[in-house]
Amino acid sequence: MALQTVRWEDGHLYIIDQTLLPMDFREIRLDTQEAVWEAIKSLRVRGAPAIGVCAAFGVLVGFRQLAPADAHAAQQAVRRVAGYLATSRPTAVNLFWALNRMRNAAEHSGAASTVESLFSSLEAEARSILEEDDATCRAIGESGDSLIRDGDGVLTHCNAGGLATAGYGTALAVMFRAHEKGRRFHVFADETRPLLQGARLTTWELMQAGIDTTLICDNTAAQVMREGRIQLVIVGADRIAANGDTANKIGTYSVALLAQAHDIPLYVAAPISTFDMSLSSGKGIPIELREPEEVTQGFGTRTAPENVRVYSPAFDVTPAGLIAGIITERGVLRPPLETAIAALGGGQTAFV
Amino acid sequence: MALQTVRWEDGHLYIIDQTLLPMDFREIRLDTQEAVWEAIKSLRVRGAPAIGVCAAFGVLVGFRQLAPADAHAAQQAVRRVAGYLATSRPTAVNLFWALNRMRNAAEHSGAASTVESLFSSLEAEARSILEEDDATCRAIGESGDSLIRDGDGVLTHCNAGGLATAGYGTALAVMFRAHEKGRRFHVFADETRPLLQGARLTTWELMQAGIDTTLICDNTAAQVMREGRIQLVIVGADRIAANGDTANKIGTYSVALLAQAHDIPLYVAAPISTFDMSLSSGKGIPIELREPEEVTQGFGTRTAPENVRVYSPAFDVTPAGLIAGIITERGVLRPPLETAIAALGGGQTAFV
Repeated sequence: MALQTVRWEDGHLYIIDQTLLPMDFREIRLDTQEAVWEAIKSLRVRGAPAIGVCAAFGVLVGFRQLAPADAHAAQQAVRRVAGYLATSRPTAVNLFWALNRMRNAAEHSGAASTVESLFSSLEAEARSILEEDDATCRAIGESGDSLIRDGDGVLTHCNAGGLATAGYGTALAVMFRAHEKGRRFHVFADETRPLLQGARLTTWELMQAGIDTTLICDNTAAQVMREGRIQLVIVGADRIAANGDTANKIGTYSVALLAQAHDIPLYVAAPISTFDMSLSSGKGIPIELREPEEVTQGFGTRTAPENVRVYSPAFDVTPAGLIAGIITERGVLRPPLETAIAALGGGQTAFV
Repeated sequence: MALQTVRWEDGHLYIIDQTLLPMDFREIRLDTQEAVWEAIKSLRVRGAPAIGVCAAFGVLVGFRQLAPADAHAAQQAVRRVAGYLATSRPTAVNLFWALNRMRNAAEHSGAASTVESLFSSLEAEARSILEEDDATCRAIGESGDSLIRDGDGVLTHCNAGGLATAGYGTALAVMFRAHEKGRRFHVFADETRPLLQGARLTTWELMQAGIDTTLICDNTAAQVMREGRIQLVIVGADRIAANGDTANKIGTYSVALLAQAHDIPLYVAAPISTFDMSLSSGKGIPIELREPEEVTQGFGTRTAPENVRVYSPAFDVTPAGLIAGIITERGVLRPPLETAIAALGGGQTAFV
């Protein structure tokens, strides 16, 4: 995959506007911190790792916009922009992780640094986050690809592909790598209501990679499992608690229960930056509620009565007990997940 | 509910075009057998009982269109129209049941009957089917309403309301009756992809009846269950085998597994005309496959890549073991369902 979901060039931040895919492939330039915030909030850029990368460069955009006059003001500007961007979406931990790295980079550059040298330090840190993400995703692919055997059917939910990261994906990285190694398998992609990331983004990425793909409605996954056409499920993650409880796109918990009912293993693929060691379980993960219109007026046409009440959480939490393993850049963590996660010694504990 | 889903007036067949709801409430007149066939195929009229009622009157429409010259030709015309309408949708058994009743009515009217008297007999039979449906649905409501207690949350999938019948519904009849009796409860309606009968039709009917209603995406049902907000599930049925296996809208099997995982009882509400005693289990129920465009281009906007493969069965089969009871016009059948169904002595065994 040669996707550049987020790109920093000549001092400008570009993203692929994912709300327009797959019918229109268009890059947009984000020139203000408000534009970056809106792009994250509106899911023009989405997927936990990609949000983190975009927010990191967003700090540069906001920093330049605030045009701090001296080193003290520059430190303040970084904190202000990071604090603002942190309000865009509450669930994906990578957002806070990336903003925290940017704040730390600013602090470590020292009070004596000039505005220009601070900007350079921040730019270097954002570039590192992007480059590390790419390396991490490739390592995730390598960690997990052997889980997919010739002839398997793989179910995925939402989009944990190149578009959800700097370019290679997490759940889809495993599939890309297995495909690159010559394994032949079939992927079923849940369309993933309300915003159809599976229909719009995952099928598009898989078809571009030449992987056999079938699109299904979310409510069809159980039937496909029953027909014996799914051997494993691989999904991404927006935040993983210390015990392995995993927040991911709404519907993942449903898929996990259905997989269990059919004795199909479910794997989560995520970088270690997705672990939130400050939370002992998934109970503490804040779940974003989305606007009713995404459900009642998706893609232009109104399809529900005016004033109907809608409950639209963006995420749900899959209990660790339903997860067969977490595919990370440092290998596949196996149950008991709490122990395996603790042994990593990584993850996040402090946030913006 | 004063809905007239299917109406026969002054020798003309009218239906509410359900593809336009809830934004546009419009009746259309079906003047040819081809128009009736298309209306069923395109889900302008849908729901197993309503399809049966519409097809019964459709035999009259086709009969008049063929304008048989004598009694022999008239008998042939009935068989021809019934055979043609039977090809519109394969899963709902009520279609075949109603067409069979119309054929039997023609045969019993005798070879000596005139074209005019045969038409009258057929018209009387179709009117009976409609009137019986209304009485049946009200009896279903009465059979099941006590299952809903004050303060309950009820989940339903697709639309088994007035629009799916002659006017009062099956699953929704239970809710309408409980509401009429003053019980206060809350309904969660799955939107039901791809054609959104839950979002478009069920919420509309429930809101018109003054019942508290919340719309959710299909993939959100598990989360709502986990939050403790669902105490029972009630769905309709398109065909029930002799052992209780139940074909209903795709996603019902998924809901049934999720309900089981949360210890929530799932009830099926259906008239006895929905039982197919010729099938010992759900394995023999033909499952209709729908066109990819309903998934990839729902409601006007394309939301998936060109040429993406789509698997879109219209129905799935919920095993009897996941069903806590079947609410019929003759009471609630309880497990073991096979025994309870056999004891009814009703159901269908011969089809067009």
